[in-house]
Amino acid sequence: MEKEKLLELLEPQAPDEILDVIRDEVSELHPATLADLMDQFEDEDILPIFNTLDLEQKVAVFHHLSESTQQHLATTMRFQRLVKLVSLMSHDDRVDLLQSLDDDLKETVIRSLAKAEREDILRLSNYKEGTAGAVMTSDYVWIYKENSVREAIKKIKREAPDKETIYTIYVLGENRELVGFVSLRELMLATLNDKVEDLMTTDLVSVDATDSQEESADLLSKYDLIAIPVQDEAGRLLGIITFDDVMDVLEEEATDDFHKMGSVSLGKMTLADASISAMIIKRLPWLLILVFMNIFSGAGIAYFEDTIEAVVALVFFLPLLIDSGGNAGSQAATLMVRALATGTVKMKDWFRLLGKEVLIALGIGILMAVAVSFIGFYRGGIEVAVVVSLTMMIVVLFGSLVGMSLPFGLQRFNLDPATASAPLVTSIADIGGVLIYFGIATWYLGVGV
Amino acid sequence: MEKEKLLELLEPQAPDEILDVIRDEVSELHPATLADLMDQFEDEDILPIFNTLDLEQKVAVFHHLSESTQQHLATTMRFQRLVKLVSLMSHDDRVDLLQSLDDDLKETVIRSLAKAEREDILRLSNYKEGTAGAVMTSDYVWIYKENSVREAIKKIKREAPDKETIYTIYVLGENRELVGFVSLRELMLATLNDKVEDLMTTDLVSVDATDSQEESADLLSKYDLIAIPVQDEAGRLLGIITFDDVMDVLEEEATDDFHKMGSVSLGKMTLADASISAMIIKRLPWLLILVFMNIFSGAGIAYFEDTIEAVVALVFFLPLLIDSGGNAGSQAATLMVRALATGTVKMKDWFRLLGKEVLIALGIGILMAVAVSFIGFYRGGIEVAVVVSLTMMIVVLFGSLVGMSLPFGLQRFNLDPATASAPLVTSIADIGGVLIYFGIATWYLGVGV
Repeated sequence: MEKEKLLELLEPQAPDEILDVIRDEVSELHPATLADLMDQFEDEDILPIFNTLDLEQKVAVFHHLSESTQQHLATTMRFQRLVKLVSLMSHDDRVDLLQSLDDDLKETVIRSLAKAEREDILRLSNYKEGTAGAVMTSDYVWIYKENSVREAIKKIKREAPDKETIYTIYVLGENRELVGFVSLRELMLATLNDKVEDLMTTDLVSVDATDSQEESADLLSKYDLIAIPVQDEAGRLLGIITFDDVMDVLEEEATDDFHKMGSVSLGKMTLADASISAMIIKRLPWLLILVFMNIFSGAGIAYFEDTIEAVVALVFFLPLLIDSGGNAGSQAATLMVRALATGTVKMKDWFRLLGKEVLIALGIGILMAVAVSFIGFYRGGIEVAVVVSLTMMIVVLFGSLVGMSLPFGLQRFNLDPATASAPLVTSIADIGGVLIYFGIATWYLGVGV
Repeated sequence: MEKEKLLELLEPQAPDEILDVIRDEVSELHPATLADLMDQFEDEDILPIFNTLDLEQKVAVFHHLSESTQQHLATTMRFQRLVKLVSLMSHDDRVDLLQSLDDDLKETVIRSLAKAEREDILRLSNYKEGTAGAVMTSDYVWIYKENSVREAIKKIKREAPDKETIYTIYVLGENRELVGFVSLRELMLATLNDKVEDLMTTDLVSVDATDSQEESADLLSKYDLIAIPVQDEAGRLLGIITFDDVMDVLEEEATDDFHKMGSVSLGKMTLADASISAMIIKRLPWLLILVFMNIFSGAGIAYFEDTIEAVVALVFFLPLLIDSGGNAGSQAATLMVRALATGTVKMKDWFRLLGKEVLIALGIGILMAVAVSFIGFYRGGIEVAVVVSLTMMIVVLFGSLVGMSLPFGLQRFNLDPATASAPLVTSIADIGGVLIYFGIATWYLGVGV
């Protein structure tokens, strides 16, 4: 059933009738659709709706709900129901939920769980946010390498209902160290008496628990894996990260880079949820930094005050010239930041790309100089035309080189290349642009200073 | 084996020895690793290396190779080998390969294939680039709803070696229309005599072949699916899109938006591969458009020439003020474009977000006005301080509203919101900024015009 149709059905109903509709229709709905729907109700209506679901549906729906709805439900539902829900949730999701609750409630829930679950939660919450350890889950299927295919399939069938994925099975050695993996497909095609170790793939793609979630996501995506295993320093298997969680990580990282490129970073907030004061706090700092950088442009202009007074027509071309440098720089920075983030360009390519960028920027600069020379001639005669075209060429070259080098420089010092945001590159290009423009004008026109 | 280690091993060797090393080590290497390695060799070395692989390895490695390496191999390898390779490749990958070849070679290869494969290729190549139909593959497993679990598992085992995924099995009705799906996990847990139709999930998440690849990717990601089915208008199953292809689509779309935001769009090229002239052609148009937009800023300045001549100190604050408007606008546009792309914000939220943005921008504007008033006072006394602070507040508000409304406006007219690039928003904010600044100065200081 389509969400729109259901919403329509619900629209004119009293709350009790809504519950009846949901009870009747819910068996047909995908948990993600139902969660979407629930997120749209007012807080006080959500718990009654949630309570119409049976336990299995609750578990399935819960992890699709928005963080704020999850928190609302967790704090309003009956405590024993919360404990039951947490014990049945997938291991990574329940850690995320518990960490979003206040400390008292979290502690009480954890204390009410069985010992094995308590330990699992503590182990998983040990890892810093942003690491592979923090996004992994411990509900994977493993077998010993001495097991036969028959034993493996028996174990998979037994454990299937509780595991995040059963399509990749991890093979452990004597000391629980990860020695390989085997896909369910391979097991199904093998003879029941075959040994797992004869079937398994030993060319492992894995990450350490302390590696970044981004690196884990990139590897999974590159090798087309359903899940990537996470190991400790001793090579023991700690957990896995599945492809659906990786998609969320990739989207998060892309959003983060995207925002940084516009010199605003929301962290865990979303545009729709963030409060007005939070948004001001997030957006103001970079704007202030950029204002103070612009004082240098202003100081440059002040220094050339005599030149400006002598030929006021020069001011006409100021925004056009310095913005062109900034725009060419934004382009170069954008291309470079994204290429570094997706791994299509590496640190070692810097020198080669620098040479290429010089030629590209020169080409663009010359063509832009030609375009702008006509406007220069029209407004200020041949002399202004010369100054303006020469400036255009140099300013585009300068902006492009700043734009392409800054992300590399940041990466070199282990800072995030995306900090080389379009506004930052523009501001640097502006300062350079002012100096270049009035410097050339003063020299060529023989006025001022 | 690590790629670095292998590269080190290969470094000082003669070509023949390289081949020996690869032959010895290759059985341990993941196809993606080997492909990565091959991409780094010179064109003339690639074919000999590729030929050391057995057919199965060739198929596995080929689809991980870069597009240019694939093309080089396809045009240099023996024709019969190419036909064999194409016939064994996954159905979506081979269509991509064939479409990258020149028409003669493509036709000859297609003519040499078996009839069923020929038809499959023609059917898959029928869809426009960017649609679900163009990224789907036809190697999925399907069963009739009347089948028993025993029959289903038998069919899966028989077809497993040739299918892209066997973990979701699609259930068809009498007229080959898609009626549901069942996971291999569910089949394994069921009794062999159960009927498929009693097990299957009928709440289908699917797309039409003409839907966009982006929409398909978003749905798969939202519903945590391994694959999403693609149907025709009559509801018949045409193919599936698997999660690994979706990851590529998501990355492509993110890159595309990212590039657009920096007002440069590379299309299918990558920064590392693109030629210098191609890069100039891709980057120049937007820069020229922006130059011509900046003529309006220049015209604004020219109009207020008398004001500037009266109080030259005003020029000092010009870059600082107009850039602040542009930067606040870039932030707002960045947040909005990404939120629209990820679906966290919808068209209907425009009015609510506009109200919120007014308050946010006012807050930021006032704080920035306070900061800049000190510099204004220091450089030009109380009157300049008033003009500069008032301008700052209005310019930040103006820029922010342009930045947040432009992406919405573009979306409203079915254009790509990401066209509201940072440089475009900056240029619009600049024009507004010049008029606001000198307008206020002329009025408040009672000079010029």
